[in-house]
Formats: sequence, C-alpha cells, structure tokens
Amino acid sequence: MWRAAFISLRPRSHLVWMDSVPKSAASVRKILCEAPMESVVQVSGTVISRPAGQENPKMPTGEIEIKVKTAELLNACKKLPFEIKDFMKKTEALRLQYRYLDLRSFQMQYNLRLRSQMVMKMREYLCNLHGFVDIETPTLFKRTPGGAKEFLVPSREPGKFYSLPQSPQQFKQLLMVGGLDRYFQVARCYRDEGSRPDRQPEFTQIDIEMSFVDQTGIQSLIEGLLQYSWPNDKNPVVVPFPSMTFAEALATYGTDKPDTRFGMKIIDISDVFRNTEIGFLQDALSKPHGTVKAICIPEGAKYFKRKDIESIRKFSADHFDQEILPVFLNTNRNWNSPVANFIMELKRQELIRLMETQEEDVVLLTAGEHNKACSLLGKLRLECADLLETRGVVLRDPTLFSFLWVVDFPLFLPKEENPRELESAHHPFTAPHPSDIHLLYTEPKKEDVKLLSHMLQALDYGAPPHGGIALGLDRLICVVTGSPSIRDVIAFPKSFRGHDLMSNTPDSIPPEELKPYHIQVSWPTDSKAAKAH
Amino acid sequence: MWRAAFISLRPRSHLVWMDSVPKSAASVRKILCEAPMESVVQVSGTVISRPAGQENPKMPTGEIEIKVKTAELLNACKKLPFEIKDFMKKTEALRLQYRYLDLRSFQMQYNLRLRSQMVMKMREYLCNLHGFVDIETPTLFKRTPGGAKEFLVPSREPGKFYSLPQSPQQFKQLLMVGGLDRYFQVARCYRDEGSRPDRQPEFTQIDIEMSFVDQTGIQSLIEGLLQYSWPNDKNPVVVPFPSMTFAEALATYGTDKPDTRFGMKIIDISDVFRNTEIGFLQDALSKPHGTVKAICIPEGAKYFKRKDIESIRKFSADHFDQEILPVFLNTNRNWNSPVANFIMELKRQELIRLMETQEEDVVLLTAGEHNKACSLLGKLRLECADLLETRGVVLRDPTLFSFLWVVDFPLFLPKEENPRELESAHHPFTAPHPSDIHLLYTEPKKEDVKLLSHMLQALDYGAPPHGGIALGLDRLICVVTGSPSIRDVIAFPKSFRGHDLMSNTPDSIPPEELKPYHIQVSWPTDSKAAKAH
Repeated sequence: MWRAAFISLRPRSHLVWMDSVPKSAASVRKILCEAPMESVVQVSGTVISRPAGQENPKMPTGEIEIKVKTAELLNACKKLPFEIKDFMKKTEALRLQYRYLDLRSFQMQYNLRLRSQMVMKMREYLCNLHGFVDIETPTLFKRTPGGAKEFLVPSREPGKFYSLPQSPQQFKQLLMVGGLDRYFQVARCYRDEGSRPDRQPEFTQIDIEMSFVDQTGIQSLIEGLLQYSWPNDKNPVVVPFPSMTFAEALATYGTDKPDTRFGMKIIDISDVFRNTEIGFLQDALSKPHGTVKAICIPEGAKYFKRKDIESIRKFSADHFDQEILPVFLNTNRNWNSPVANFIMELKRQELIRLMETQEEDVVLLTAGEHNKACSLLGKLRLECADLLETRGVVLRDPTLFSFLWVVDFPLFLPKEENPRELESAHHPFTAPHPSDIHLLYTEPKKEDVKLLSHMLQALDYGAPPHGGIALGLDRLICVVTGSPSIRDVIAFPKSFRGHDLMSNTPDSIPPEELKPYHIQVSWPTDSKAAKAH
Repeated sequence: MWRAAFISLRPRSHLVWMDSVPKSAASVRKILCEAPMESVVQVSGTVISRPAGQENPKMPTGEIEIKVKTAELLNACKKLPFEIKDFMKKTEALRLQYRYLDLRSFQMQYNLRLRSQMVMKMREYLCNLHGFVDIETPTLFKRTPGGAKEFLVPSREPGKFYSLPQSPQQFKQLLMVGGLDRYFQVARCYRDEGSRPDRQPEFTQIDIEMSFVDQTGIQSLIEGLLQYSWPNDKNPVVVPFPSMTFAEALATYGTDKPDTRFGMKIIDISDVFRNTEIGFLQDALSKPHGTVKAICIPEGAKYFKRKDIESIRKFSADHFDQEILPVFLNTNRNWNSPVANFIMELKRQELIRLMETQEEDVVLLTAGEHNKACSLLGKLRLECADLLETRGVVLRDPTLFSFLWVVDFPLFLPKEENPRELESAHHPFTAPHPSDIHLLYTEPKKEDVKLLSHMLQALDYGAPPHGGIALGLDRLICVVTGSPSIRDVIAFPKSFRGHDLMSNTPDSIPPEELKPYHIQVSWPTDSKAAKAH
C-alpha cells in the first residue's frame, strides 16, 4: 500500500523529484509547481530507482523516487510568517507564536525525536532490564511545607485547594512503604517561580526510588541508565563518573555544577598573603572564612581588551559587592590597576608557581569570605571561557560529555532572600549525612510538620530504608542535543514569563466560571483603573 | 552481593522459613519471632536449596531458602489499622486513608505491576515497531470552549488563569500541522465533574494521532496495539474486532458500549402491535419515533421474584418515566399485570416467534420514543444479567474479552441537562461523517470560536489530513484485571468526592498564599456562619 507523505523541497523528505513528472503530464506539473511552499500535496505514481549518479546515500529514501501519475493539492499553505529554514534567524517570540510551523524545522524535529527515543531507552533499561515499576502519581495534591512555589487549583469546596506538586517526592516514598520497591516515573512537575529565564512552569523529571539501596547503588544505576540510553551518534558517556564533594566543587569551581571540560580552576592563594602588609588583603584574611582566591585566564592578556576587564570588575562589584584585581605577568601592561601591579612585584614568583601562569596570562584575584569569593570566581570562570571562545580560543569541546557526581551536599543553605534563615539545599526529604545527624536535634528552626503528618505516620508502619534520585529530563536533553535553551527540547514551551504565545495563555475567565470554585479576583488598584479604560 | 528484602509471612515473599534458623541461634530467633507483623527485618545468611518435598514451583524463590546467620530489626511496624490480606473486607475509606498499607496487598501489587508492564509493551509497539514519537504536551493551557469542566490554575497576573485540559486534543492536532506525523503520549488528563462515582479528577489516556490515516488505519493500529500488549496469562484478544454502528448499538443494546458477551438483545416488536386496539400502545406508536420494544430474560420466571419485577418497574418509572410490562409465557403466572396478560393472549404466537422465547422466560416490554425505550431496556438488560448471576446463572465469562468498534457516532447529541441544546457527542474536534457535512452549514448553533483562533489559524498552513484516538488507560487496566473500580488500578486515587483521604486534600490555604495569585475566597453565606463556630 502506498502512503502519502509531506512533500516539499525541505531537507527532510526530497521524495519526489520534479524531473520524474513527465513533461507531457501538464496538469500534474501545474499542481506541483504552483502549490505554495509548505502545502500538502497527495500524489500517486510508481516507485522507481533514481537514475545512476543521482542517489543520495545519506537519506533513507535516497535510492528511489516516484514517477508521478496524479497529484492533488490537499491543503494549500497560506503566506508563511517566516521561512522554515534553520539558518533563518527569527525572534523566539515569533517562533513560539507559530510553534506549529517552527516544529517543522530540522532542529525541532531532531530534538523531539531524539528525546522520544532516549526516554524509550531509559524505560527499557529501568523496566525491562532492572525490574522497575512505572507508577503514575497524582498532580492534584496537598501543598508541601514551604510550598510557596506551588501552583494552586481551587476545588468546588469553598476555601479548599489542591496544589500542583514540585515533584512526586512524597508519593515515591509512600510507594516504598507500600512495598513497590523499585519505582520510576517520567514525572510532570510544577514550579511557579514567576518570570525566570530558562525555567518552565511545568517540566519533566526521571524520578526514581528504591528500597534497600545505598548511594553507590543509585550512582551505578544512573551511570548505566545514561550509558544505555545515550544516542549512538554522540560521543559516549564514560562510566563510572568521577565524584567530587560539594565543598570541593565550590572551592575549585565556585558552583555545585562544575563544567570540568576545561581548567581555570579557582586557586586559594591566601597563604601567599598571610603576612602581607597590603591593607585590604589583611582585612579580608582577618575575618571569619576570609580568603584570597584567584583564577588564571590563559592568554588573557592577548585576547581580552581593557573594556572586558572593566566589565568583569563592574559585574563583580554590582552582583557580588566584591573587588576584582586583574594581575598581569607581562609588566608592560597595567590597565588601571596599580594595586595589582604592586602585588605582582612582591609576590610574582610565588603566584607563578601556585597558579602555573605563563607570560600572556591574566590572573583575576579577589579577597573575601570563602563562599562568596568562590561563587564570584566560578561565575567569572564561565564568563571568561565564553569570552575566550568568541575570540576564537578552543577551550571546551561541545561534543564531549563530562558527567560527574557532586556528593555530600549540605542539608540546608542560607536563604537567598534572607541569609539569616535556612532553606533545604535540595528538598526537605533528604537524609542527613550520618556524621551530621546530631545537629538536627540541636537546630533551632523546624518546619511546620502538620502538613506532613501522613508521611510521618507512614514511616511508622514498617518502612524499608530507601533512596532515590531525579534527573531533570529537559535539561538532560538540552545537554545531549547541545540546545541553547530548554525551550528547544519541549514541543510547546512557555515564554520566560510563563506565557503560551500561540494561544495567549494564561487568559481571562468569565466571572461565572469562577463561581463554582468560590473564588474571585482581587484586582490591584492600578489594574482596576487600567481595566476601566 | 546479598540484597535485603521484605520478609514476612505474606504470600508475596516467603523467602525465609523459620525452620532454617538453627534452634541454637537464640537471639536471631528472638528477633524474627518478636518482630511485629509487616516490620522490616534485615537478615544475612546462606542461600540453600529447600529440603526435598518443600519446594514451591509456583514461586520464583520457591526452590531456595536462606539459612539465617544474623538478623536486625530495621523498622518495627506499629499496630496496623487493618490486616493486609486480600480476603479481609475493609471499607474503601480506610483503604484510601492508609493507602501505603493497602498497596502491600497482593491485588494492588499485581494491578500496578501489570499496568506498568502493559504500558511498556504499548510503548514498544508504538515507538519501536511503528515509528511513533512520544511527545509531552502542556497541562497548563488555555480553557477550551465549553470548558466548564476544566480545573483552573490562577497565575500571578491579576485575573489571568491557566486551565488543566481534558485531553491533549489541540496539541496533537498542532503536532500534525508541525510535521510530527505519528504522535503518541501516555497523557495525564483532568476533568472536574464534581462528585461522580468511579470518575477521577485526573486520569490517563493513551493518546494517538497520525497524519494521512483513515478509520481503518486507526482501527488496525489499535487492534495490533492491544494484541501486542495483552498479558500472556489472560485470554487473548481476538482481532479484528467486530464493528457496529452507533445506531445499531443503541437499537440492539441500548448503549454506546454494549456488552456483547451475552444475548438478551433489544427486539423491536412495533409491527406486532401496528394495528392493535390497546390504547397506550397505539398512543406510543402514533408519536414521532414511537416504538414498542422488549427484551427476553431467559428463565426469568424461574429466577426472578415478584419483588424483583416490582423494583424493575419502579426503576423504570423513576429514572425513565417509562412503564415496563412484564410478560410471562407461562400463563400460570401473572404477577399483577393484567394488561400484559391481555397482550400475551392476543399476540402470543407472534411474540414467541420474534423474541424466540421459551416456557420459563420473561419478556420485559416498553412502549415509547425509540432512543428512550432503548436506553431503558439497555439498562434493564445489564441489571437483569447481574441479578441472574447473583442467582447462580452463568451468563458472562469474566475472563473473556469481547472488544468491538462502535462507529458512525453522531457529531452532536442533546445535552443531558437541557435536551433542547446540543453538545458534542465526543468532543468538538471530530470530523463529520462525509454524508453529513452539509448539515454543518445549515445548523443554527455554533460554538464560540475566539478561544480556538490559534487552532483555526494553524489549519491554514498546510495541515495534513489526520486522525487519532484515545484509550482510557485506567478503564482498560480495570477490564484486564477484572477490578471492580478504577481506584483499584491507580496508586493514589481520589475518593468519589475528589478527596485524597490519606493527606486530607484539598485543603485550606492561608490567605497570604492566595495573595500572589490575586484571588480571594468567596465564602458562601452559610459556610461563613459555620466557620464562625
């Protein structure tokens, strides 16, 4: 049986060659020639081999063509808002507005098909090879403590709401209590973070939980999972993954997700200045957790312009309230940094040895509290790497994948918005490190447990020891496909403001449709005025 | 490496036999004997063969046992609210409150594991064998026209809401426009129908759409899908499925989902009474679509009691406003139905021929408008079958599966709540039957299309012809496992009132958490009074 297909001059098909339509079949030629770009045409004819020399071994259909007998224009495409070619630059807003056209691009087709295949391989690995049970858990649930980032869903009972959970965390632990000892789910998760770039209000994670497992067991499962599901046409993932503590990652890369494909590590040079007379360094070192840290930009003096250094310093002052000193080995340069030159003269040999610097390198030096100094230099490390690459330096191989485990995370970190309060570094369902358990009983603040009483109760009924993990699927596919944004691996993503630009969502609702849910809109005063116009 | 496991005397495990603990190891015996039921115990020891004659070939671990050396009580189970045995009757409310314990039952373990395996086989069939692409579509979307049954999700923009869609219908059609010509998804869907038995506010469907496909193509795909994914230990599904029109299903079975495993079909006996002088039959037949219909209950006179007939008549009067006449062939019985006896005398031979009745059968006869009469008799057919089975008659084999296609559905049906208005029989995205297209242009009512402008626009950009289907997964697994309720094939279902009884969901939300969403609760007056107490 012959099946119709998209027929166009786009790279994906190329099934019909106009040459195979006999010149005599004037009406067929007319239909095919006059159909607007991206139209749907149904043809019938005979499948024949392509003439010798015209085969295309790169295409599945590259050996054949169709000798067309009849043609019918099924659906003419109206004037396109943009050309569907990948190299055509179009704004993302336009792409999202006409997402159904953007999906026809080679890249979106590739990304979505690869995502489907990779998830399928993951399922095979977990279900068929490792006895996991794929279990769907509810998304209409109770709010979790500290759940201010959870969307609400009004119910038909006055004042009663469901919440859309951030993950199936509670359910997967309850499943362990329920004796379903190997659970996984490709789980839809929700997080209402307002407008944040490269976040989505709904996202997907590969969610896993096991009974009677330890950290090593989870790690080797995941290593096997990624290796098994990794696309054949990509550089392979190498297992086992190296492991690094959170403290080490922060100290060396200034982040909990270090890119280890290149150097430029953060070096602690406090000892060089332990007995310095330079006032601001002394100041920094005398405070609790005070350090002097630096990164070395290879050939920075060659590739960076003065304005680059200026913008680095401005960024550091604006976002971290930290001073950055650029230090040049080549004494011909000083670029507005007399202090740095002074340091350089005094400590040149020690710095060169510690930082392994070369003639044209630039050292970026900062002094201050350990975590803050590291975070800043971690950011600058990535910024400078980007900058070097735009100047033609090859630092990172984008086709290489360097997974690693960051372990021994702290249970709590200071809240970003109020550092005097603590918040869970990951989520409040993490087991403490064995050596830290005693701290839990001496800690002053404890979360409101009333909302979790069902969980605490469940753990009393013969709960097995259990552990789990969740992989952010959207970001993982981003990494695999080398996509600049998670919006490029999601079929219908929201804009960074949480809007669906195609359908104009979220949208107004007639007041009578709010009634069954016993809610009304509290219009802010200025909006009300605006609405009156 | 030795892995610990749930060890108990429940049927699922039986891995450890107390006999294999040497009598000398007193402390081990003590731990194992004194651990409360359903506790978690970790043992170490040597795997040995079971003594000859004690093997259990029905269990995967039936050949072995563990000679226990050490034992540790990891988590003692506190007093259980119910015994975890399948034959123990417990209320559903209690099961749902302690769902994590109910999940340990043999039946729930079996149902959830079978569900996972069957879905996996479906994925293999669709993805690996038929080139489908598994694509996730958003659940935070725009309301659909007539979307009064959609949950709302307030956004942080005043007066703007997302809706949780009832299905990925719009997205799957947009994917066809986007050139992803074979889409499927195990899709989470939402429907807010308030309190309805055996419905869930969130449910799952196997959602499929294809470009360039016709009805036959979809049908054979689904037949293959079910055949491929069907569990080996069940009676097989026989393909191809028989096909029946909607009109035929209604006329013969009084429903759009007929159970064809048994007879008792609805017979039109209007012709028998075309020239009758019995007033109420003449009345019925003289009206538009007026009919006389009947079903025959085999051996009804033997198995049914007078009160059964009474309750059938009462049900018909209460729910359908229809009179049911029970007609007995055996003239020794009349049970309060002189009219029926009168009919019987006059038309005995014709009725016996048409209905193929036998001596002890009962005929249930009704007169009235075609659809209404059929719906009533369709209900009575099932009720009577249930009743006969409780009396020991074997009518239906519960291990047999009789799938069939019901085709040629009407596009619109009268609304249940207001029969003068029309509503979509399935949903508003169905293609009309080719012979009915002209009616669309002469119909008075049309849906508000403003909410669908993006869809209508997309169809102008070279949309291929496409078609699809969705299978209700929860109900399908119900059928396969023979479960009485869809709550038995869902890990964490809601009660029929939409509550999660384990966590007390939906729940109140502090007013300050409503603020970011610019909504407030409209308390009904009486609730407010109730709250004040």
